[in-house]
Amino acid sequence: MTQSNVSSTPEHGTEFLPKYDAHGLLTAVVTDYDSNAVLMVAFMNAEAVASTIETGFAHFYSRSRKKQWRKGESSGHVLAVREILTDCDQDALVLRCKPAGPTCHTGEKSCFYRRLGDGRLERLPA
Amino acid sequence: MTQSNVSSTPEHGTEFLPKYDAHGLLTAVVTDYDSNAVLMVAFMNAEAVASTIETGFAHFYSRSRKKQWRKGESSGHVLAVREILTDCDQDALVLRCKPAGPTCHTGEKSCFYRRLGDGRLERLPA
Repeated sequence: MTQSNVSSTPEHGTEFLPKYDAHGLLTAVVTDYDSNAVLMVAFMNAEAVASTIETGFAHFYSRSRKKQWRKGESSGHVLAVREILTDCDQDALVLRCKPAGPTCHTGEKSCFYRRLGDGRLERLPA
Repeated sequence: MTQSNVSSTPEHGTEFLPKYDAHGLLTAVVTDYDSNAVLMVAFMNAEAVASTIETGFAHFYSRSRKKQWRKGESSGHVLAVREILTDCDQDALVLRCKPAGPTCHTGEKSCFYRRLGDGRLERLPA
């Protein structure tokens, strides 16, 4: 099947062409499938993107440990990926997920549990 | 006023201590204040964080142009920031915004207008 030029550009096409930075990473934003709340932000390399698509569970790349990790591999709080969105230039993904438990390692539902108010952080209302 | 140890840790404290990476950047996720939809993902340096807080309008750092930019400076499609959330280790921010127009440079409301389905990208239903 031939592809038109338009369909093969990253911005207007139907081809999934993830764009990794100089370190081989792109940004992943995890949102709650039901509430749309942002749960966490992490990085993915090509291996993590492939593992996520293949298994249906979110995988990321740890910059400190320099390796792929499966979210929940120790806590059990996995993220079942229901939908993957890409942005215009395909250097960021949104993973719309059903979380199996708190997403944050602190035990909070979301890593974003504080907001900036008058120069200090305050807890978001539950 | 003395601070307890707890209140001064990045994860549990009330101090805003943005954590920049080796390039002096952190990740910013822009969401629509009303719908919670993710509109765009960009990077901020300390200057962009300060400009955003000072003006109430979203500023970012362009890695390609190597300088701060104010979202909407040419298009007029500014992002009025209503709330800034930080994640546990403070290396990512969520800017909850009221957009003055389409956020994506393609004219789309959000940069995330496509999803992955069966190995190809498809347009999200309106």
